[in-house]
Amino acid sequence: MQFQPPKGTRDFLPEDMIARKFILETIEKTFQKFGFQPMDTPAFEDWQLLSKKGSGGEAIKNEIYYFRDKSDRELGLRFDLTVPTARVVASNPQLPKPFKRYQIGKVWRYDNPQAGRFREFTQTDADIFGSKKMACEAECMAAAVYALKQLGFRDFSIRLNNRKILNALLEFTGIKNPAEVLRVLDKLEKTGENEVLRQLTNIAGEKTAKKLLSLIKISGQPKTVLLKGRKVLGGIKTAEEGFFELEEITKESETYGISGRLSIDFSLVRGLDYYTGPIYEISAKSAAIGSIAGGGRYDSLIGLYSGKPIPATGFSFGVERICEIMKNEGMFKFQKTYTKIFVVSVSDKTRKDAMEIAEKLRSRGIETETDLMGRDIRKQMEYANSTGIPFALFVGEKELKEKKFTLKDMRTGKEKKIKIEEIITCVLKSNSQHC
Amino acid sequence: MQFQPPKGTRDFLPEDMIARKFILETIEKTFQKFGFQPMDTPAFEDWQLLSKKGSGGEAIKNEIYYFRDKSDRELGLRFDLTVPTARVVASNPQLPKPFKRYQIGKVWRYDNPQAGRFREFTQTDADIFGSKKMACEAECMAAAVYALKQLGFRDFSIRLNNRKILNALLEFTGIKNPAEVLRVLDKLEKTGENEVLRQLTNIAGEKTAKKLLSLIKISGQPKTVLLKGRKVLGGIKTAEEGFFELEEITKESETYGISGRLSIDFSLVRGLDYYTGPIYEISAKSAAIGSIAGGGRYDSLIGLYSGKPIPATGFSFGVERICEIMKNEGMFKFQKTYTKIFVVSVSDKTRKDAMEIAEKLRSRGIETETDLMGRDIRKQMEYANSTGIPFALFVGEKELKEKKFTLKDMRTGKEKKIKIEEIITCVLKSNSQHC
Repeated sequence: MQFQPPKGTRDFLPEDMIARKFILETIEKTFQKFGFQPMDTPAFEDWQLLSKKGSGGEAIKNEIYYFRDKSDRELGLRFDLTVPTARVVASNPQLPKPFKRYQIGKVWRYDNPQAGRFREFTQTDADIFGSKKMACEAECMAAAVYALKQLGFRDFSIRLNNRKILNALLEFTGIKNPAEVLRVLDKLEKTGENEVLRQLTNIAGEKTAKKLLSLIKISGQPKTVLLKGRKVLGGIKTAEEGFFELEEITKESETYGISGRLSIDFSLVRGLDYYTGPIYEISAKSAAIGSIAGGGRYDSLIGLYSGKPIPATGFSFGVERICEIMKNEGMFKFQKTYTKIFVVSVSDKTRKDAMEIAEKLRSRGIETETDLMGRDIRKQMEYANSTGIPFALFVGEKELKEKKFTLKDMRTGKEKKIKIEEIITCVLKSNSQHC
Repeated sequence: MQFQPPKGTRDFLPEDMIARKFILETIEKTFQKFGFQPMDTPAFEDWQLLSKKGSGGEAIKNEIYYFRDKSDRELGLRFDLTVPTARVVASNPQLPKPFKRYQIGKVWRYDNPQAGRFREFTQTDADIFGSKKMACEAECMAAAVYALKQLGFRDFSIRLNNRKILNALLEFTGIKNPAEVLRVLDKLEKTGENEVLRQLTNIAGEKTAKKLLSLIKISGQPKTVLLKGRKVLGGIKTAEEGFFELEEITKESETYGISGRLSIDFSLVRGLDYYTGPIYEISAKSAAIGSIAGGGRYDSLIGLYSGKPIPATGFSFGVERICEIMKNEGMFKFQKTYTKIFVVSVSDKTRKDAMEIAEKLRSRGIETETDLMGRDIRKQMEYANSTGIPFALFVGEKELKEKKFTLKDMRTGKEKKIKIEEIITCVLKSNSQHC
């Protein structure tokens, strides 16, 4: 009988896990650098809480893992990190504002598994609660850019829009059912203009559909787009607010040195229906598969849980997509193991000395392995090789007498005789690249 | 309407989370130092897999979160990390041996919540698959000791036993229902000798109970205990194997420099019924609440899933207990935030400069915050103070002209004028303790 992980879920063996950890740790360090603090919430929540968000309601039961515990409590695995955090922020009014928190964790959706979509996946969220200032949006975008650069991305752009402008555009064109229309517009990139026009025509008639489509196609440099937008929507209060906010973000983003990557795109909808203000998405130009980070403002969500609205804005990364792109583009430095050195015991007689040298290396901060199988040299080397350990250190009687040991670079095959202290300095300094 | 985390689960706000992360990261770095590699598995598994372990079976359904997904698949939240790992090892025979993996993650049990017990908690496991050598046990114990030292523990001891010896002791005293008796013995520390004697008498009669109790009370220095044990059980094959294994571990532990902390204690049972060989527990002497780390060998478990047994041994930490002890004993350095510096903008005019200095500090590796609320100096300082940020840096027009900035140590109240480059060097070097 063969057991597999449940459908839509995955095991991560060390090699994959090391790659994922590189991404997650880079993102986490960035969050910390910008003053976000860690927070954690349970994997499951009361069903009542989960069903409260946006237009979800009962319908959401079909898209999540819902269950009852032994006391017949209705529970569900969290489908995002925003709802649990909203609960925490709503029920902890004592938290100093702005409350800047990050959370990295798994979420679960009863999705139909397909390429790149899983029923269990990791989210990385950073949010700022308690400030209405557009400096927050600029800082979030700057943090996203910072992390992506650290990961090795060079070629990416930020598309910016505002739900207030979108709403005004729908109002202006005479749309009666904005939620439905937004769902159609959200698929523009995926389904293409013709399909969107067809669906819009079905909903609102050809004339309105064509008008709306021509308006949301406005995009480009912030200044130009703001000028065009104001020409069309000037005088509509929500639109004016939206333009002002985008102008503020554009100004702030100069301070953060990211204004060059910024464009405004009226067609950006960004799915989730809880957004209330600015929204943005970051795409890698090299990758065809959409955005790798994004975020926006959702000033009404916390109020759903506490009755008292608290301004909120935040962003997150598409970890699974980033992982895929980095693999495909060869952006990972190849690393199969965290271990830096395998200490080879040349014979049974030198085993104890080899272990002691390994202990010494560890105490100096170097990830070190030794033989745990009672194997001969050849087999020890096979192990070091198959697990991808970059260095092997040979401990034999002759070496012990000379107090110099043969260090072999497993990647180049090169060997040299070297003192323990030199090995330590070298490995620590070179970050194991070369000794 | 007020929402809480579900019964038996917890939220971790930043201050608690930073403390927990210190523990988890210290443990993780130790695992890596000893050559364990990271692995991950899904939060839930097929019910068939979960019910297979040990004597669990259907009964385990009452102790875990069991549910069916929309396709009527029977699933359960994992109750430990051992079963998922056993599945992975069983179904990936290509992994080089020894396969040394660690896994840190949440597990869920439908336990009755009580002091220090939760329905959602974190486990930290490291295991070695594929080696029968007792060097593995010594290395696991050494790694546990290493991590505990890094966490700040000084005063702790390792109790060692062997399931083979326990089984031989039960056989020798004529016990007919070993599983039941082991469950009683397992509670010795908790319920005390009298209660254990009473229960044993009920099971096996007074004479046998007294005999068994006197034998399992043998404990102390490895050499002495092995001598005593061999006198009683010499000639019983399983006992001889057990003694040999403990002798090997004792020898190996000298190499790892941990033999001084080692004692053998025939009363140690260590709950779980899948152990097949050596078992051990590490206790902090200062704490009355039992062991904080432990492990053992379980050579039969993998065979349950693949039909092909693979030797296995490993250890883990009692993260919740360690967290509690460290809090109670004041072992955490007080740290409410990862942020090192708050850059104060003295007026609206200097805001942009303040932001740019903050960006510079971040780019040099320093966790930095600035005002995101448009606040005046007093309010900015209140925020820095209430969130526990150790340094405040004042950016005003005068400072910008002089290119020297007032740095305030928020804990001592001391201020000094200092150049940006000096601040960077100082904060990076001092690890934010003092500048």
